This record gives sequence, C-alpha cells and structure tokens, in this order.
Amino acid sequence: MALVVQKYGGSSVADASCIKRVAQRIVATKKAGNDVVVVVSAMGDTTDELLDLAQQVSPLPPGRELDMLLTSGERISMALLAMAIANLGHEARSFTGSQAGVITDSTHGKARIIDVTPSRIREALDEGQIAIVAGFQGVSQNTKDITTLGRGGSDTTAVALAAALDADVCEIYTDVDGVFTADPRIVPAARKIPRISYEEMMEMAACGAKILHLRCVEYARRFSLPIHVRSSFSTKEGTWVVSDPDSEGNEMEQPIISGVAHDRSEAKITVVGVPDKVGEAATIFKTLADAEINIDMIVQNVSAAATGRTDISFTLPTTDGSAALTALKKVQERIGFESLQFDDQIGKVSLIGAGMRSHPGVTATFFAALADAGVNIEMISTSEIRISVIVGQDEVDAAVAAAHRAFDLDADQVEAVIYGGTGR
Amino acid sequence: MALVVQKYGGSSVADASCIKRVAQRIVATKKAGNDVVVVVSAMGDTTDELLDLAQQVSPLPPGRELDMLLTSGERISMALLAMAIANLGHEARSFTGSQAGVITDSTHGKARIIDVTPSRIREALDEGQIAIVAGFQGVSQNTKDITTLGRGGSDTTAVALAAALDADVCEIYTDVDGVFTADPRIVPAARKIPRISYEEMMEMAACGAKILHLRCVEYARRFSLPIHVRSSFSTKEGTWVVSDPDSEGNEMEQPIISGVAHDRSEAKITVVGVPDKVGEAATIFKTLADAEINIDMIVQNVSAAATGRTDISFTLPTTDGSAALTALKKVQERIGFESLQFDDQIGKVSLIGAGMRSHPGVTATFFAALADAGVNIEMISTSEIRISVIVGQDEVDAAVAAAHRAFDLDADQVEAVIYGGTGR
Repeated sequence: MALVVQKYGGSSVADASCIKRVAQRIVATKKAGNDVVVVVSAMGDTTDELLDLAQQVSPLPPGRELDMLLTSGERISMALLAMAIANLGHEARSFTGSQAGVITDSTHGKARIIDVTPSRIREALDEGQIAIVAGFQGVSQNTKDITTLGRGGSDTTAVALAAALDADVCEIYTDVDGVFTADPRIVPAARKIPRISYEEMMEMAACGAKILHLRCVEYARRFSLPIHVRSSFSTKEGTWVVSDPDSEGNEMEQPIISGVAHDRSEAKITVVGVPDKVGEAATIFKTLADAEINIDMIVQNVSAAATGRTDISFTLPTTDGSAALTALKKVQERIGFESLQFDDQIGKVSLIGAGMRSHPGVTATFFAALADAGVNIEMISTSEIRISVIVGQDEVDAAVAAAHRAFDLDADQVEAVIYGGTGR
Repeated sequence: MALVVQKYGGSSVADASCIKRVAQRIVATKKAGNDVVVVVSAMGDTTDELLDLAQQVSPLPPGRELDMLLTSGERISMALLAMAIANLGHEARSFTGSQAGVITDSTHGKARIIDVTPSRIREALDEGQIAIVAGFQGVSQNTKDITTLGRGGSDTTAVALAAALDADVCEIYTDVDGVFTADPRIVPAARKIPRISYEEMMEMAACGAKILHLRCVEYARRFSLPIHVRSSFSTKEGTWVVSDPDSEGNEMEQPIISGVAHDRSEAKITVVGVPDKVGEAATIFKTLADAEINIDMIVQNVSAAATGRTDISFTLPTTDGSAALTALKKVQERIGFESLQFDDQIGKVSLIGAGMRSHPGVTATFFAALADAGVNIEMISTSEIRISVIVGQDEVDAAVAAAHRAFDLDADQVEAVIYGGTGR
C-alpha cells in the first residue's frame, strides 16, 4: 500500500461538478489500495474575488488580514471536496494549514515553511480516512497568526506534506498532460517529457516554465521526493520529476537538451556611462537589493579605455521596473553614471539539459540556430545545465522554435529516436 | 475607560460600503476612550450561498465539514472589517473563534460554549488594538475541530466574550431601534422599550420576538452582563437588557406588561382517545424526545368518565411536524390511542411582564380583550411573568393589537404616562 499525496489546483475545483469529478478520482486512488492525502487550492477565481473585496475596503490592506481573508478560499474548496467524497461513501476530513501542522515564518503573503508536523493527518490516515488539506496556507511559529505561502504555495504545501509524511509520490494535477519540451502553443511539435531531474526542472521553472514553481521543486529535491505532474482530465502518465531520470530501465541515451523555456515577463535596464572604479557596480546592486528588487541576468561591457566609463545592463521582472529606476535615480549623482535606459520589449529563451555538461558543442549549435532564424542575441547567461539568451520580445517564438528543432526535440524526430533506441 | 463588546450582524456588513460605515462607528467608539472588541457575522447572504454550494456536492453533508465550510463566511467579513479599520488609521486584528478561545462541545451545527479563554484578545487590547472576532464559531474541546453555534450564534459569541472579558456592556447592533412592545408591522403604535429585565427578554425571545436569541440572553443573565440592543443606522439609545430595569433613577411605576410577542412558526398535534392509564402520557413524550422534537405547550383534557379515554394536545415547531407524526404512529398500537390530528394554522400570542407577579387581574383583562376582539382561545400556558394563548393563525394580528391596547402600551398612552409620571 502506497501513500499518495495529490494536489489539485483552482481550475480542477472551479465549481461543484469539477469538485465531484475530482472526488471520484480521489476515491479511485483510495480504492486502488492507497492512503490518500489531498492538497487543494481555492475554487477558480475565488482568490481574485477576495482580493477585489479587499481593495474595496482598503487600498493597502495589512498583510496579516489579507492572509486571513485569502485563506477562506481553500477553506471553502476543501470542505466541499470532503463532502463530495463523503457522498461517494468514503470518509474524508478537511484540515486547514494550521491543523495540518504547516508551520511557517511570519512573513505574511510569502511565508516560508519552517516545519511540518502532520500528526492529525497521520491520525486520519490511520483511521482509514482521506485527508483533505488546504494548500497555500500555514500558521506562524511565533505569532500563531495565519500566513500564506505566496505564488506556487499549494504545490509547496503538497510537496512539504508529502516529505513530512514520507509519501511515495506527490502528484501535481493540472490542466495539461505534463511538462513539455517547449510551450506547445509556440512549438506544436513539442512533446511531453516522461522523466526529468530536479535540477533541470528547477532551471525550467526559473526560466519561465509555469507548470511547477521553483520552491516546490527545491523542496522535493531536498527530500528526494518524486513528483508526478499530470492532467486531472486524463489517466495518462504525466512527467516524473526525480533525482535520476535515467535510472529506471531507461537504456536510451540521455538527451542533451530536455527542453526550451521562455519568459516574456522581464525587462532590461542599462546604466550608461558608469565610472570604471572599484565598487561602483556594488553600489548599484546594493541600491537595488535595498529596494527588494530581484535581479536576473547581469552584463558589464568592457570599459572603453578612452572614457574610463562602462555600461552595466541587467534584467529584472517588468513589474519592478519603475521601482528600480526610481531607486537608481536617487544615487545617480553619487555614482556619477550618465543615464538610464529601460527596455521592456525583451524576452528570455533558455535551453535546459543535464546532458550539456558533457557536450561542449551546445552553445555553438544554439547560437547557429538563432543566427539561421535571424534572431539577434542581446545578452547571454549560462549555468552548468542551462544557456539563456535575451532577444527581442517579437523574436521569442522564432528563437524557441529554432532551438527546439536544432536539438532534435520535435515530436516526430524524438519518437523515432525513442522507438529506434529502445527497440520497442 | 470602558470595555465595550459590539456585535454586528450580516446585514450591517453586507458589502464593502456597509463594512466601511461599521468601521467608522467602531473607530468612533475607540476614540471616545473605550477598549473595543467587535464580533461580526458573515456578510449578507454568504451563509446561504455556502449552504447552496454544499447542497450541490452532497445532499446530506457531514456536520464537521459543513461547519468548516460555513465558518469561512465570518473569516471573510472579519478580515475585511479589520482592513477597513486599519485604513482609518487604527490598529485592528481579526481572530477566528478558535483563536479567540471560544471552546465548545463537539455538536456540529449547534455546539454549546463550554469555556472562553480570550488571552489573545486581552493581549490585543493591552497593545491598544481593536479586536475583531468571528461570531457563530468555536473549536471543539475534545476533537479540536471547528464548530458552529447554530441559530443566534453570533449574539451568543458576543455575550460570552463580553462575560469572559468582564466587559462593561455588550452592544448588539441590528437594523431596528431596539426591542419593541410589539411587532410594529402589526401594531404601528408599538414603542421601543428603554429597559427590560433578562427574565422578560428571555420570555420574549422564547415567544417569537426575533431580535435576540434565547441562549444569548440566558448567558448574559448568568453573568449579569448588560446588553444594549440598538440600531447600526442611528446613534439613538436602544433597549437595555439588565438585571433590574427599574433601578437607575427610574421612579415611574413599573409597567404591568412589558410587551406582546407572537409566533406563527408552531403547529398543534392532538393525540385523540388516549387510554387514561398511568404512564401513557410519559410514553408519548418519551417517544417525541427520542426523536429530538422540542415540545412547547401541552394540554391534557379531563378524562371522559364514560370512555376512560382522554385527548392530549401539544405544540411544536411546524418543521418538526411530520417527524413527530411519524414517530407517534409507530407507537399507536402499543399506546392504543385512536388517532392523530395535525393543525399548522395556529399562532401563539404572549403577554410578558414582570409586573404581572403582583397584578392578579392580568389574565382576566387579557382574555376579555381577546373576547372583545372576537378571538377564540385554543390553548393556554402561563409562567410567573408570561401568559401565552394559542389562537387561529389569521387571528394573531387582531389578538396582538387588542392585548397591546388593553394594557395601555400604545405609544400615545404610554408617552402620556411617562411625561406625566416623571414631570419631564
């Protein structure tokens, strides 16, 4: 008998009929002989509706009260789901984040999980019940106030609970079949990735693949917990996120590139004419850090000997753009740079693959593919298993498609490799 | 500096603008130098909407999950109210029933308060904050599950918290100006009662006056906590419910009758031809008690010597009627009664007044007034400070009006007495 943690997002429980369908799926998992813990998000647009109500009474609501408000969303969906399961003749009990033992720090709106003490969940399982847990929420260790985990919070709840309960798998249900080699809306030939490593999945998440949040994958990696990303609309296998995707009888050659991710949510700021002295770059990025702005890529040009000045470019979330410009203008005189340039018409395209560690030609192939497609590269950044480039926003689609084809990821090519390689 | 507990019902917090208005009222109370604890119900129709959702997923939802679902309603209203107060520049913190220390038994849907341990509320007050507490809900002592208190629950929460905090007053805000001598829709000359005793208010509540729930008044009496029932739409004094309404410099003669209440929600069952043997009545009412049916009035006719049989009539909530008939039919053979009669076209009219203790003519005056109005009396029941009669449902209005006039309660009469009596 396995212990399965399942997470259903807001679109899976959008209304009463969705909830009943999910209840049947949960009961089927239970009937198959598993212990089942379910983590659930708020129904459909509930969170947005609650935020709208908050805006109506206060333009800047206190974080503690906003968290109290928003957590009512999962309270509704989890109670309804427990009722729907009971109606199918199985015992289910719903638990708030606090009741489930999700202990966090006190940072309202984006609390971090400190500990998970799921004694009540264990009791429910021991009594043969299905446990339904509110995602996205916890209780502060110090103040005992209700907290929310911020973006991707319900996925993180599911993985944290699964780790604490030593579950066999954490299933993340969504409205697509799994993680794809690229966004199928851009690359129709994109295919589902059957297995992927935590490291690759983290790079995918950090580079704009929205299917799993970075925090949740980090958490799963720390506890070597397998995640199974799959569709709540079918029973097909989805994508397994695991430590070693090539271990289980998969004799195929590891693909060099696992997938191509893209992100249109960033902007670029260039600080023009920075005096080329020790510590100037540090002052710039200290200023941005103090304003709580997250920087992604950074490029510093070689200093022009004639002027003794250089340009520093960096990317950041577009939504942080005006805050960053304001913060930098305040230190313009002190640093002595000449001007600021802001460009939100950019996009980031990233190749991710553990195989590139042992394949030195990846960068060359990637850049040649972009050149052939007429795409100009503005910035470059790399990690051990990733290459990211900044391109013009209207060139993102072409860049993704070109890279996808260049690394033989298109479905017809890959199917041939799979069937050829394994003899099946 | 006084400690004031205020309770606002669902209609007072029906939407964002209502919530902002209530927030201003709360802040005004705080600015006047009081410590303020606010108990709030769910917004407008929220509870009905949640019940409707529950019905969509399960015809008979488990009580535990229904309580979990319904308590999200106050969570929303209390968080929004705290935000609205914060927006006016005052600190407010919201607390669930559980956080406020409202400890109950485990009877989901109609839990009883066992204890109130409001340490977090005291802390908030000590820090100069306004505490906002979810009405209607608590946490079970044994199972630590979330419970709801059932009808009148938020009023009970307010009184229980006020008692535990040793508050100076519990203000119950509603959409009318206070407790009236009769329903103004039936008796336009009805007037607001300035002060009334707990005992009279309890009789009023038990006899159909919907403004305060019986449980809440019982609780206040036990702790001698003054309740002030008043309108959230005006700053006028409402009705004070206190131990001794005549104590504070009120030199007027105590009125014989405080008010006339009526109730159309009951039905009458007559068990015809019950063998006049010891224990038959006990069997009938044991049967009804086992079916969890609350009986109100009971009348047993004198046995007819010729037949050795008697009739037993009783009243009960109309909604329990079919359950009662079913339960009684099952024991018809064993008891040997002849038949059952059911009548839901009845109404109860009650005179309430502590003064009737010392005025033996009240019954005679009441019955004469009913006779003059052509109203036939079907059943009679009395307590030390109340006389109730069952009449035809279409005669309720006439009976209430006649009684109100017979005891000089009509506004013009009473105003004359007040102004004459006190010389103002």
